Amino acid sequence: MAGKAARPAKPVRQRLAPEARAELILQQALRLFADQHYSAVSVRDIAEACGINVGLIYYYYENKARLMQRVLEHTLAELHRRYDAGQGLSAAEELKAWLRMHAALAPMLVRMAKIMFDYSASQPKDAVIGKLIAGFYQKEQMFLETCLARGIAQGEFTVVDVTKTARLFSLQLDGIFYAVQARSDGQIKNDIEVLCALVDSPALSRKR
Amino acid sequence: MAGKAARPAKPVRQRLAPEARAELILQQALRLFADQHYSAVSVRDIAEACGINVGLIYYYYENKARLMQRVLEHTLAELHRRYDAGQGLSAAEELKAWLRMHAALAPMLVRMAKIMFDYSASQPKDAVIGKLIAGFYQKEQMFLETCLARGIAQGEFTVVDVTKTARLFSLQLDGIFYAVQARSDGQIKNDIEVLCALVDSPALSRKR
Repeated sequence: MAGKAARPAKPVRQRLAPEARAELILQQALRLFADQHYSAVSVRDIAEACGINVGLIYYYYENKARLMQRVLEHTLAELHRRYDAGQGLSAAEELKAWLRMHAALAPMLVRMAKIMFDYSASQPKDAVIGKLIAGFYQKEQMFLETCLARGIAQGEFTVVDVTKTARLFSLQLDGIFYAVQARSDGQIKNDIEVLCALVDSPALSRKR
Repeated sequence: MAGKAARPAKPVRQRLAPEARAELILQQALRLFADQHYSAVSVRDIAEACGINVGLIYYYYENKARLMQRVLEHTLAELHRRYDAGQGLSAAEELKAWLRMHAALAPMLVRMAKIMFDYSASQPKDAVIGKLIAGFYQKEQMFLETCLARGIAQGEFTVVDVTKTARLFSLQLDGIFYAVQARSDGQIKNDIEVLCALVDSPALSRKR
Protein backbone atom coordinates (compact mmCIF):
# COMPACT_ATOMS: atom_id res chain seq x y z
CA MET A 1 0.00 0.00 0.00
CA ALA A 2 1.30 3.47 -0.88
CA GLY A 3 1.34 6.48 1.40
CA LYS A 4 2.50 7.05 4.94
CA ALA A 5 2.65 4.23 7.46
CA ALA A 6 -0.55 4.13 9.49
CA ARG A 7 -0.19 5.74 12.89
CA PRO A 8 -2.13 4.32 15.81
CA ALA A 9 -5.06 6.68 16.07
CA LYS A 10 -6.91 7.57 19.23
CA PRO A 11 -9.98 5.34 19.19
CA VAL A 12 -13.05 7.22 17.99
CA ARG A 13 -16.40 6.20 19.40
CA GLN A 14 -18.32 4.84 16.47
CA ARG A 15 -22.01 4.61 15.90
CA LEU A 16 -22.40 0.88 15.47
CA ALA A 17 -25.21 -1.02 13.83
CA PRO A 18 -27.47 -2.77 16.38
CA GLU A 19 -26.09 -6.25 15.70
CA ALA A 20 -22.48 -5.05 15.91
CA ARG A 21 -23.32 -3.31 19.17
CA ALA A 22 -24.95 -6.43 20.63
CA GLU A 23 -21.86 -8.41 19.61
CA LEU A 24 -19.54 -5.79 21.18
CA ILE A 25 -21.48 -5.98 24.46
CA LEU A 26 -21.16 -9.77 24.57
CA GLN A 27 -17.43 -9.62 23.79
CA GLN A 28 -16.73 -7.03 26.48
CA ALA A 29 -18.90 -8.87 28.99
CA LEU A 30 -17.02 -12.14 28.36
CA ARG A 31 -13.68 -10.34 28.73
CA LEU A 32 -14.64 -8.55 31.95
CA PHE A 33 -16.33 -11.57 33.57
CA ALA A 34 -13.23 -13.64 32.79
CA ASP A 35 -10.54 -11.10 33.73
CA GLN A 36 -12.29 -10.22 36.97
CA HIS A 37 -15.09 -12.27 38.49
CA TYR A 38 -18.74 -12.63 37.58
CA SER A 39 -19.89 -11.28 40.94
CA ALA A 40 -17.42 -8.35 40.86
CA VAL A 41 -18.45 -7.01 37.44
CA SER A 42 -21.46 -4.70 37.17
CA VAL A 43 -23.55 -3.96 34.10
CA ARG A 44 -22.19 -0.41 34.42
CA ASP A 45 -18.59 -1.70 34.12
CA ILE A 46 -19.55 -3.44 30.89
CA ALA A 47 -21.27 -0.34 29.53
CA GLU A 48 -18.16 1.72 30.26
CA ALA A 49 -15.92 -0.83 28.54
CA CYS A 50 -18.18 -0.61 25.47
CA GLY A 51 -18.32 3.18 25.58
CA ILE A 52 -22.11 3.11 25.66
CA ASN A 53 -24.81 4.18 28.05
CA VAL A 54 -25.78 1.62 30.67
CA GLY A 55 -29.43 2.05 29.71
CA LEU A 56 -28.65 0.66 26.28
CA ILE A 57 -27.41 -2.60 27.79
CA TYR A 58 -30.62 -2.90 29.78
CA TYR A 59 -32.46 -2.32 26.50
CA TYR A 60 -30.83 -5.50 25.16
CA TYR A 61 -30.51 -7.52 28.38
CA GLU A 62 -32.88 -7.50 31.31
CA ASN A 63 -30.18 -7.90 33.96
CA LYS A 64 -26.69 -9.27 34.58
CA ALA A 65 -27.86 -12.89 34.73
CA ARG A 66 -29.54 -12.60 31.31
CA LEU A 67 -26.40 -10.96 29.91
CA MET A 68 -24.28 -13.79 31.34
CA GLN A 69 -26.74 -16.25 29.80
CA ARG A 70 -26.31 -14.66 26.35
CA VAL A 71 -22.51 -14.59 26.74
CA LEU A 72 -22.53 -18.32 27.45
CA GLU A 73 -25.02 -19.11 24.68
CA HIS A 74 -22.96 -17.10 22.21
CA THR A 75 -19.71 -18.81 23.23
CA LEU A 76 -21.24 -22.28 23.21
CA ALA A 77 -22.81 -21.67 19.78
CA GLU A 78 -19.36 -20.72 18.46
CA LEU A 79 -17.90 -23.91 19.95
CA HIS A 80 -20.71 -26.20 18.84
CA ARG A 81 -20.51 -24.92 15.24
CA ARG A 82 -17.16 -26.76 15.14
CA TYR A 83 -18.41 -30.06 16.49
CA ASP A 84 -19.15 -31.37 12.99
CA ALA A 85 -15.73 -30.49 11.56
CA GLY A 86 -14.55 -34.10 11.62
CA GLN A 87 -17.58 -35.62 9.88
CA GLY A 88 -16.60 -38.15 7.24
CA LEU A 89 -13.29 -38.93 8.96
CA SER A 90 -12.44 -42.14 10.80
CA ALA A 91 -13.39 -42.15 14.49
CA ALA A 92 -9.78 -41.60 15.59
CA GLU A 93 -9.29 -38.72 13.15
CA GLU A 94 -12.61 -37.18 14.12
CA LEU A 95 -11.69 -37.39 17.80
CA LYS A 96 -8.29 -35.80 17.22
CA ALA A 97 -9.76 -33.04 15.01
CA TRP A 98 -12.28 -32.32 17.77
CA LEU A 99 -9.57 -32.19 20.43
CA ARG A 100 -7.38 -29.91 18.30
CA MET A 101 -10.31 -27.61 17.65
CA HIS A 102 -10.15 -26.81 21.39
CA ALA A 103 -6.56 -25.66 20.96
CA ALA A 104 -7.61 -23.44 18.05
CA LEU A 105 -10.38 -21.85 20.13
CA ALA A 106 -8.22 -21.66 23.26
CA PRO A 107 -8.46 -17.90 23.99
CA MET A 108 -12.27 -18.09 24.00
CA LEU A 109 -12.39 -21.39 25.89
CA VAL A 110 -10.00 -20.23 28.62
CA ARG A 111 -12.43 -17.40 29.31
CA MET A 112 -15.44 -19.69 29.12
CA ALA A 113 -13.88 -22.12 31.64
CA LYS A 114 -13.14 -19.21 33.95
CA ILE A 115 -16.66 -17.75 33.89
CA MET A 116 -18.31 -21.16 34.29
CA PHE A 117 -16.11 -21.90 37.30
CA ASP A 118 -16.67 -18.50 38.91
CA TYR A 119 -20.38 -18.59 38.18
CA SER A 120 -20.75 -22.01 39.76
CA ALA A 121 -19.47 -20.58 43.07
CA SER A 122 -21.67 -17.48 42.91
CA GLN A 123 -24.99 -16.86 44.59
CA PRO A 124 -27.84 -16.67 43.79
CA LYS A 125 -28.04 -19.49 41.25
CA ASP A 126 -29.87 -18.95 37.97
CA ALA A 127 -31.76 -21.97 36.64
CA VAL A 128 -31.28 -21.07 32.97
CA ILE A 129 -27.51 -20.61 33.29
CA GLY A 130 -27.26 -23.81 35.32
CA LYS A 131 -29.01 -25.67 32.50
CA LEU A 132 -26.68 -24.15 29.89
CA ILE A 133 -23.61 -25.37 31.75
CA ALA A 134 -25.08 -28.82 32.35
CA GLY A 135 -26.10 -28.95 28.68
CA PHE A 136 -22.57 -28.10 27.55
CA TYR A 137 -21.12 -31.02 29.53
CA GLN A 138 -23.86 -33.37 28.32
CA LYS A 139 -23.20 -32.45 24.70
CA GLU A 140 -19.46 -32.94 25.18
CA GLN A 141 -19.98 -36.32 26.82
CA MET A 142 -22.41 -37.35 24.07
CA PHE A 143 -20.02 -36.34 21.29
CA LEU A 144 -17.22 -38.35 22.89
CA GLU A 145 -19.37 -41.40 23.59
CA THR A 146 -20.72 -41.43 20.02
CA CYS A 147 -17.26 -41.12 18.52
CA LEU A 148 -15.80 -43.82 20.79
CA ALA A 149 -18.71 -46.19 20.14
CA ARG A 150 -18.31 -45.73 16.37
CA GLY A 151 -14.56 -46.45 16.60
CA ILE A 152 -15.23 -49.62 18.60
CA ALA A 153 -18.00 -50.77 16.24
CA GLN A 154 -15.74 -50.24 13.23
CA GLY A 155 -12.88 -52.14 14.85
CA GLU A 156 -10.66 -49.06 15.02
CA PHE A 157 -10.68 -48.75 18.82
CA THR A 158 -10.22 -51.44 21.44
CA VAL A 159 -13.31 -52.25 23.47
CA VAL A 160 -13.27 -49.70 26.29
CA ASP A 161 -15.98 -48.51 28.65
CA VAL A 162 -17.39 -45.73 26.47
CA THR A 163 -18.94 -43.70 29.31
CA LYS A 164 -15.84 -43.78 31.50
CA THR A 165 -13.43 -43.10 28.65
CA ALA A 166 -15.54 -40.18 27.40
CA ARG A 167 -15.53 -38.68 30.87
CA LEU A 168 -11.76 -39.16 31.13
CA PHE A 169 -11.28 -37.10 27.96
CA SER A 170 -13.78 -34.51 29.13
CA LEU A 171 -12.09 -34.14 32.53
CA GLN A 172 -8.70 -33.90 30.84
CA LEU A 173 -9.96 -30.93 28.81
CA ASP A 174 -11.27 -29.34 32.01
CA GLY A 175 -7.86 -29.92 33.61
CA ILE A 176 -6.05 -28.38 30.66
CA PHE A 177 -8.16 -25.23 30.75
CA TYR A 178 -8.07 -25.05 34.55
CA ALA A 179 -4.29 -25.34 34.49
CA VAL A 180 -3.86 -22.37 32.16
CA GLN A 181 -5.24 -20.24 34.94
CA ALA A 182 -4.12 -22.00 38.11
CA ARG A 183 -0.61 -22.92 36.95
CA SER A 184 -0.11 -19.94 34.65
CA ASP A 185 1.60 -22.22 32.15
CA GLY A 186 0.07 -21.94 28.71
CA GLN A 187 0.65 -25.44 27.38
CA ILE A 188 -2.77 -26.01 25.85
CA LYS A 189 -1.48 -27.05 22.44
CA ASN A 190 1.08 -29.51 23.87
CA ASP A 191 -1.39 -30.89 26.40
CA ILE A 192 -3.96 -31.53 23.67
CA GLU A 193 -1.33 -33.26 21.51
CA VAL A 194 -0.66 -35.64 24.43
CA LEU A 195 -4.36 -36.47 24.44
CA CYS A 196 -4.24 -37.03 20.67
CA ALA A 197 -1.28 -39.38 21.19
CA LEU A 198 -3.40 -41.28 23.72
CA VAL A 199 -6.02 -41.80 20.99
CA ASP A 200 -3.35 -43.46 18.82
CA SER A 201 -1.82 -45.43 21.72
CA PRO A 202 -2.62 -49.08 22.57
CA ALA A 203 -4.93 -47.72 25.29
CA LEU A 204 -7.44 -47.00 22.55
CA SER A 205 -6.10 -47.85 19.09
CA ARG A 206 -6.11 -51.36 17.64
CA LYS A 207 -3.50 -50.39 15.03
CA ARG A 208 -0.05 -51.63 15.98
CA MET B 1 -22.86 -44.30 77.30
CA ALA B 2 -25.43 -43.91 80.05
CA GLY B 3 -27.47 -40.82 80.80
CA LYS B 4 -29.60 -38.55 78.67
CA ALA B 5 -29.02 -38.16 74.94
CA ALA B 6 -26.82 -35.17 74.26
CA ARG B 7 -28.77 -32.14 73.07
CA PRO B 8 -27.15 -29.84 70.56
CA ALA B 9 -25.95 -26.98 72.72
CA LYS B 10 -25.67 -23.36 71.68
CA PRO B 11 -21.99 -22.94 70.87
CA VAL B 12 -20.14 -21.29 73.71
CA ARG B 13 -17.18 -19.13 72.89
CA GLN B 14 -14.22 -20.92 74.37
CA ARG B 15 -10.89 -19.59 75.45
CA LEU B 16 -8.64 -21.63 73.17
CA ALA B 17 -4.97 -22.35 73.56
CA PRO B 18 -2.84 -20.31 71.13
CA GLU B 19 -2.13 -23.27 68.81
CA ALA B 20 -5.79 -24.28 68.71
CA ARG B 21 -6.71 -20.68 67.96
CA ALA B 22 -4.16 -20.43 65.13
CA GLU B 23 -5.54 -23.68 63.71
CA LEU B 24 -9.12 -22.40 63.99
CA ILE B 25 -8.18 -19.23 62.09
CA LEU B 26 -6.62 -21.25 59.26
CA GLN B 27 -9.63 -23.56 59.04
CA GLN B 28 -12.12 -20.69 58.91
CA ALA B 29 -9.98 -18.79 56.41
CA LEU B 30 -9.80 -21.83 54.11
CA ARG B 31 -13.56 -22.30 54.38
CA LEU B 32 -14.40 -18.65 53.70
CA PHE B 33 -11.87 -18.22 50.88
CA ALA B 34 -13.26 -21.35 49.22
CA ASP B 35 -16.99 -20.73 49.77
CA GLN B 36 -16.72 -17.13 48.63
CA HIS B 37 -13.72 -15.71 46.80
CA TYR B 38 -10.26 -14.74 47.98
CA SER B 39 -10.73 -11.11 46.96
CA ALA B 40 -14.22 -10.88 48.51
CA VAL B 41 -13.22 -12.12 51.98
CA SER B 42 -11.80 -9.64 54.48
CA VAL B 43 -9.69 -10.38 57.54
CA ARG B 44 -12.64 -9.02 59.53
CA ASP B 45 -14.96 -11.68 58.00
CA ILE B 46 -12.55 -14.36 59.15
CA ALA B 47 -12.32 -12.89 62.65
CA GLU B 48 -16.12 -12.86 62.89
CA ALA B 49 -16.32 -16.48 61.72
CA CYS B 50 -13.83 -17.41 64.47
CA GLY B 51 -15.59 -15.34 67.10
CA ILE B 52 -12.39 -13.44 67.86
CA ASN B 53 -11.23 -9.88 67.62
CA VAL B 54 -9.77 -8.86 64.28
CA GLY B 55 -6.69 -7.50 66.07
CA LEU B 56 -5.86 -11.01 67.20
CA ILE B 57 -5.65 -12.22 63.60
CA TYR B 58 -3.29 -9.37 62.79
CA TYR B 59 -1.26 -10.49 65.82
CA TYR B 60 -0.74 -13.86 64.11
CA TYR B 61 -0.76 -12.77 60.45
CA GLU B 62 0.54 -9.51 59.05
CA ASN B 63 -2.15 -9.20 56.37
CA LYS B 64 -4.55 -11.19 54.21
CA ALA B 65 -1.82 -12.35 51.81
CA ARG B 66 0.24 -13.79 54.69
CA LEU B 67 -2.86 -15.49 56.07
CA MET B 68 -3.58 -16.98 52.62
CA GLN B 69 0.05 -18.09 52.48
CA ARG B 70 -0.30 -19.93 55.81
CA VAL B 71 -3.61 -21.50 54.73
CA LEU B 72 -1.93 -22.88 51.62
CA GLU B 73 1.21 -24.01 53.49
CA HIS B 74 -0.94 -25.74 56.09
CA THR B 75 -3.07 -27.51 53.45
CA LEU B 76 -0.07 -28.53 51.37
CA ALA B 77 1.75 -29.86 54.45
CA GLU B 78 -1.29 -32.02 55.22
CA LEU B 79 -1.30 -33.31 51.63
CA HIS B 80 2.44 -33.86 51.41
CA ARG B 81 2.49 -35.85 54.65
CA ARG B 82 0.60 -38.52 52.67
CA TYR B 83 3.00 -38.62 49.72
CA ASP B 84 5.07 -41.40 51.31
CA ALA B 85 2.11 -43.64 52.11
CA GLY B 86 2.87 -46.02 49.24
CA GLN B 87 6.55 -46.52 50.03
CA GLY B 88 7.59 -50.15 49.80
CA LEU B 89 4.81 -50.97 47.33
CA SER B 90 5.26 -51.73 43.63
CA ALA B 91 5.19 -48.66 41.38
CA ALA B 92 1.64 -49.40 40.19
CA GLU B 93 0.38 -49.91 43.74
CA GLU B 94 2.18 -46.80 44.95
CA LEU B 95 0.65 -44.75 42.13
CA LYS B 96 -2.85 -46.04 42.85
CA ALA B 97 -2.46 -45.46 46.61
CA TRP B 98 -1.33 -41.91 45.87
CA LEU B 99 -4.31 -41.30 43.55
CA ARG B 100 -6.78 -42.73 46.09
CA MET B 101 -5.28 -40.57 48.82
CA HIS B 102 -6.69 -37.61 46.84
CA ALA B 103 -10.17 -39.09 47.11
CA ALA B 104 -9.71 -39.50 50.86
CA LEU B 105 -8.65 -35.85 51.23
CA ALA B 106 -11.29 -34.62 48.78
CA PRO B 107 -13.11 -32.08 50.99
CA MET B 108 -9.83 -30.28 51.72
CA LEU B 109 -8.54 -30.57 48.16
CA VAL B 110 -11.75 -29.23 46.60
CA ARG B 111 -11.27 -26.11 48.71
CA MET B 112 -7.57 -25.92 47.90
CA ALA B 113 -8.26 -26.13 44.14
CA LYS B 114 -10.86 -23.40 44.47
CA ILE B 115 -8.62 -20.96 46.36
CA MET B 116 -5.64 -21.58 44.07
CA PHE B 117 -7.82 -20.92 41.03
CA ASP B 118 -9.40 -17.79 42.49
CA TYR B 119 -6.09 -16.51 43.77
CA SER B 120 -4.44 -16.95 40.38
CA ALA B 121 -6.99 -14.53 38.88
CA SER B 122 -6.64 -11.97 41.67
CA GLN B 123 -4.55 -8.83 41.75
CA PRO B 124 -2.08 -7.88 43.10
CA LYS B 125 0.08 -10.99 42.85
CA ASP B 126 2.11 -12.14 45.84
CA ALA B 127 5.49 -13.68 45.04
CA VAL B 128 5.50 -16.06 48.01
CA ILE B 129 2.05 -17.45 47.25
CA GLY B 130 2.94 -17.78 43.57
CA LYS B 131 5.97 -19.85 44.55
CA LEU B 132 3.89 -22.06 46.83
CA ILE B 133 1.48 -22.89 44.01
CA ALA B 134 4.28 -23.50 41.52
CA GLY B 135 6.06 -25.65 44.13
CA PHE B 136 2.94 -27.76 44.66
CA TYR B 137 2.70 -28.57 40.95
CA GLN B 138 6.43 -29.27 40.72
CA LYS B 139 6.27 -31.68 43.64
CA GLU B 140 3.26 -33.43 42.12
CA GLN B 141 4.99 -33.74 38.75
CA MET B 142 8.17 -35.01 40.42
CA PHE B 143 6.31 -37.64 42.44
CA LEU B 144 4.58 -38.92 39.31
CA GLU B 145 7.74 -38.91 37.19
CA THR B 146 9.71 -40.77 39.86
CA CYS B 147 7.00 -43.37 40.29
CA LEU B 148 6.59 -43.88 36.53
CA ALA B 149 10.35 -44.09 35.97
CA ARG B 150 10.66 -46.72 38.71
CA GLY B 151 7.84 -48.78 37.20
CA ILE B 152 9.50 -48.66 33.79
CA ALA B 153 12.94 -49.52 35.19
CA GLN B 154 11.48 -52.50 37.06
CA GLY B 155 9.63 -53.73 33.97
CA GLU B 156 6.23 -53.16 35.51
CA PHE B 157 5.20 -50.32 33.20
CA THR B 158 5.54 -50.07 29.45
CA VAL B 159 8.06 -47.51 28.21
CA VAL B 160 6.12 -44.24 28.11
CA ASP B 161 7.25 -40.62 28.01
CA VAL B 162 7.55 -40.05 31.75
CA THR B 163 7.19 -36.26 31.64
CA LYS B 164 4.12 -36.28 29.39
CA THR B 165 2.43 -39.14 31.23
CA ALA B 166 3.04 -37.51 34.61
CA ARG B 167 1.48 -34.28 33.33
CA LEU B 168 -1.48 -36.23 31.94
CA PHE B 169 -2.20 -37.65 35.41
CA SER B 170 -1.65 -34.28 37.04
CA LEU B 171 -4.04 -32.51 34.64
CA GLN B 172 -6.63 -35.24 35.15
CA LEU B 173 -6.54 -34.56 38.90
CA ASP B 174 -6.97 -30.84 38.18
CA GLY B 175 -9.91 -31.68 35.92
CA ILE B 176 -11.51 -33.87 38.58
CA PHE B 177 -11.31 -31.17 41.22
CA TYR B 178 -12.35 -28.44 38.79
CA ALA B 179 -15.38 -30.50 37.76
CA VAL B 180 -16.66 -30.85 41.32
CA GLN B 181 -17.19 -27.12 41.29
CA ALA B 182 -17.99 -26.33 37.65
CA ARG B 183 -20.21 -29.35 36.97
CA SER B 184 -21.56 -29.70 40.50
CA ASP B 185 -21.29 -33.46 40.16
CA GLY B 186 -19.33 -34.98 43.01
CA GLN B 187 -17.80 -38.00 41.29
CA ILE B 188 -14.30 -37.69 42.71
CA LYS B 189 -14.08 -41.27 43.96
CA ASN B 190 -15.35 -42.77 40.68
CA ASP B 191 -13.18 -40.48 38.57
CA ILE B 192 -10.08 -41.46 40.54
CA GLU B 193 -10.93 -45.15 40.16
CA VAL B 194 -11.00 -44.64 36.37
CA LEU B 195 -7.47 -43.22 36.64
CA CYS B 196 -6.43 -46.24 38.74
CA ALA B 197 -7.87 -48.52 36.05
CA LEU B 198 -5.74 -46.65 33.50
CA VAL B 199 -2.65 -47.53 35.57
CA ASP B 200 -3.56 -51.23 35.24
CA SER B 201 -4.55 -50.95 31.55
CA PRO B 202 -2.28 -51.83 28.59
CA ALA B 203 -1.63 -48.08 28.27
CA LEU B 204 0.76 -48.40 31.18
CA SER B 205 0.84 -51.92 32.60
CA ARG B 206 2.91 -54.72 31.09
CA LYS B 207 0.86 -57.34 32.93
CA ARG B 208 -1.65 -58.98 30.64
